Parts: sequence; C-alpha cells; structure tokens
Amino acid sequence: MISVDFMHRPAAVAAREALPRFRQAGLVSNKLAEGFDPVTEADRETENAIRALTRAEFPDHGILGEEFGAEGSQKRFVWVIDTIDGTRSFISGIPLWCTRVGLTEHGNAVAGMMVQPFIGELFYAAGQGSHYEGPHGGNRLATRATKDLADATLCTTTPAIFDPAQRAAFDRLEQRVRLSRYGTDCYAYCMLAAGQIDLVVEAGLQPYDIVALIPIIEQAGGVVTDWSGGPAESGGAIVAAATAELHAQTLAALATA
Amino acid sequence: MISVDFMHRPAAVAAREALPRFRQAGLVSNKLAEGFDPVTEADRETENAIRALTRAEFPDHGILGEEFGAEGSQKRFVWVIDTIDGTRSFISGIPLWCTRVGLTEHGNAVAGMMVQPFIGELFYAAGQGSHYEGPHGGNRLATRATKDLADATLCTTTPAIFDPAQRAAFDRLEQRVRLSRYGTDCYAYCMLAAGQIDLVVEAGLQPYDIVALIPIIEQAGGVVTDWSGGPAESGGAIVAAATAELHAQTLAALATA
Repeated sequence: MISVDFMHRPAAVAAREALPRFRQAGLVSNKLAEGFDPVTEADRETENAIRALTRAEFPDHGILGEEFGAEGSQKRFVWVIDTIDGTRSFISGIPLWCTRVGLTEHGNAVAGMMVQPFIGELFYAAGQGSHYEGPHGGNRLATRATKDLADATLCTTTPAIFDPAQRAAFDRLEQRVRLSRYGTDCYAYCMLAAGQIDLVVEAGLQPYDIVALIPIIEQAGGVVTDWSGGPAESGGAIVAAATAELHAQTLAALATA
Repeated sequence: MISVDFMHRPAAVAAREALPRFRQAGLVSNKLAEGFDPVTEADRETENAIRALTRAEFPDHGILGEEFGAEGSQKRFVWVIDTIDGTRSFISGIPLWCTRVGLTEHGNAVAGMMVQPFIGELFYAAGQGSHYEGPHGGNRLATRATKDLADATLCTTTPAIFDPAQRAAFDRLEQRVRLSRYGTDCYAYCMLAAGQIDLVVEAGLQPYDIVALIPIIEQAGGVVTDWSGGPAESGGAIVAAATAELHAQTLAALATA
C-alpha cells in the first residue's frame, strides 16, 4: 500500500526545510510563556511542508502533527509527524535531532522513517524490513541478540522524564544493565534497530514521539510496548528492546515492587 | 612554528584507523577488572598511528597520550593525544565521539584539533584563528556574545562527574542558566567555539581531555580556565565560556558558599 520509496520524500523535505536553519542564529522562540521550551521556525516550516506532501499524495489519510495537531484522525490511515525531535540538541548545534514520520493503519504503526539531515542518515521501514542509508553506505537493520539485562546497553533521554514511581523503577533497572547513557533522544531507538544498543526505556511520550520508530524497531527484530506490555502507539511509558527475552526481563524488572 | 595544515594529518589518521571500527561488533574489551570501562581496539590503534606521525614529523617533541602515557614530557613542545573521547558514544553507535590532538609549548596550549570522522567534521586552531570544516562547508569559528548566565546554554557530560561540593556548586549554577544539556562530551566545547552554546562546566578532567580544546575556544574568542581562574592545561575542574563577562559570572556563581 505504502511504497517504501515514499519514505524518502519527507526525508527530503526535512533536508530542504530544517537543515538550512540548523546552526543559524536568531531562530529560537519561546513556546511557553514561562520557562524555556524552544520551538524553532524550522519545526513549523518543516511540519507544514510534510503535511502538504502527505495531503497531496494521500488525500484520504489523516494527519497528526506535534505543531499543528490532528486532522482526520478517525481515518484508516493516519500520518504521524514530529518534525524536530531533540529541539534542545537542534538549538545547541548537536546533530542528534531528527525528523520522524510514521503511518498508522487502524491505530497500528505500519511504516516509519527517521532522518538526521545534517549527517545525512535515514532509517526507515514500510513492511519490507528495516533499512539504513548514511554517509558511508547503507544496510538492512537488525537488532542485537542480547537476552540478558547484565549484557545490555540502556539509553534514556534523561531520568528527569520519569515520575517518582517510574524513577524508582528505572533506577532499579539501571543498576542491572551493563552500561547506560543519557541525552540520546530519538536517535537511541534507531541505534537499537541498528544493533548498537539493546534497550530504550522512557516515559511521558506522545504518539508522535514513538509511532514512526515502532516499525523501524519491529521490522529489525525488536520489541516495543508500554511498560505493561500493551501497544506503544499511544505513547506514555515505553520499553523498546532488542529481543523478546530482554523485553520480558525489562518489564519484570520495572514491575518489581 | 606549527603549520595549521598539519592539524589535518592526525584527523586523517583518525578517519583511517578509528572510523572503520565504528558501529562494528566485537571490538569492545574491558580496561578495568571491575565495572565497564570500554576501550576499543580503535583507541589503541589510532593512538599508535598518531604517535608515529608526530614522532616522525617532530622528533624533538614530547608526547602524552591517554592509552600509552608520556614520553619526553619535559620537552618545550609536547603533543597531547586523546584518540577517542566519548568511548560510551562510540560503542553505542552515537557519532559524538571525537579524536583530539593538542600541542603545548612550555605547558601552554598553543594548537589543537578535534575531529568527528563519521560526520566528517574538523575543528582546529594553530595561532591563526579557529576554523571549522564539515559536510556542508566550513567557516571561521567565533563564540557568541552572551554575557549573562540568564541567557546562557550550559553543557556538561553528566552531573555524576562532580564530587559532592562541586555538585552543589554546579546545581546552583544550573538553576541560573537558560538551558542545560547533558551527554555531549568533548563535542560541547567545539559547539561553544562555534557560537552554538555558551558554557561548559566539568570536573575530573585529565590534560588530554582539555589541552586540544583550549586553542580552539580561545582563538574563537572564548575563555577556558579551571574553577579558580587558573590555567586549564592540567585538567581538573574546568569552566569554558563564550565571553570574559560570562566566565567571571560563572566563577563567582560556582564559588558562592
């Protein structure tokens, strides 16, 4: 239904709209009246352009985007767009921000792509395996075979995303893994699909934070659910693991009172 | 004395030795008997190759490297080598690890380069300004004009690097800045030189963690010292700031009892 080739088109939009604004001065504005929730011009322009692309190509589909909300969200197919995940990276010059576009069918994530336009890396899946294209070549993605927490590399954006109960559970889990690393945002999920790390555990996610990544991980051999083992498409508290065994160990570790 | 063009040569070594080992399986070994201090084959091979390069080119100079220690450290000129900073990034597939080579003259850092071979980014300085070359072009580096903590973006690798007293000082400082970000390792110092962030505050650094970065920051207009305002070349607790005013505010904030 959805050609895997189509996943290159929103990636090209991100390269055209977001990349020229990266490492430029004067583009940051405040989304919130208080505090500092940076949203760039790049965010808005890129989402507008990707919405226009999906509207033109798939007029019967719905769209859900971080910046401009939902249209036709009851449709069979819905495109889920997050133009710049890692805005703090973006406004700090760090090339780990990404643009993500996912597709749900009856609420299930069936296709997705994540692009980092500065490095020139694209991760995508649309029912025919999970794939990578980068500056030094491309390959089919496959998760690692890690089955035990004691051998696992764990990533999360920051422990500050967890509520107190979640934080206690995360701290327990973190003590059991081989290595943990913070600050990786969406990039961590693609490193999981690429067999570079084994586990991503986060909380407080929105649908547009995770939908695009589910097919990339699942079609590379991994497992993505919420902390209770249910579907991940609605966001919330998420576990992504390289193998079913590691996923089961992680859910058990998080659930231990 | 040292041609700025020479700084490209250790960068080429890093691309030849370290890059082919990035995102490969089976290269990680344990440096410590306990815990997990990952050192890769890439670390050792790259340092060997850079030591050979500087020995051949500058037989009268000394060398200090993370993996193989010091030779001729009493010499007027000493090359200071850290082949892979951010080994945790390296073994997690995250392209924020860097190779750094600096040069001291009578103990003062006078030249330095930092390269990220996967992205293809080089930051360097050798007495003729601070320079950048990357996949989308190059430019001369200049720090931002930020003078006030309230406007500053602060980076540190992780608050876990501080001892309890330093941590209390850092926490105080962090509450006064506009935005803080973790997990950036050496890359943050070059984003400071590039005018993307304003402040890096760390502790527990070795000379090879900081020597190469001092000229890149200073020759871009920034200030680097230890927390008491003394020379940074010996490592320890470090403040790097975009302007002299911001640097002074930061030292004062860290020193407040």
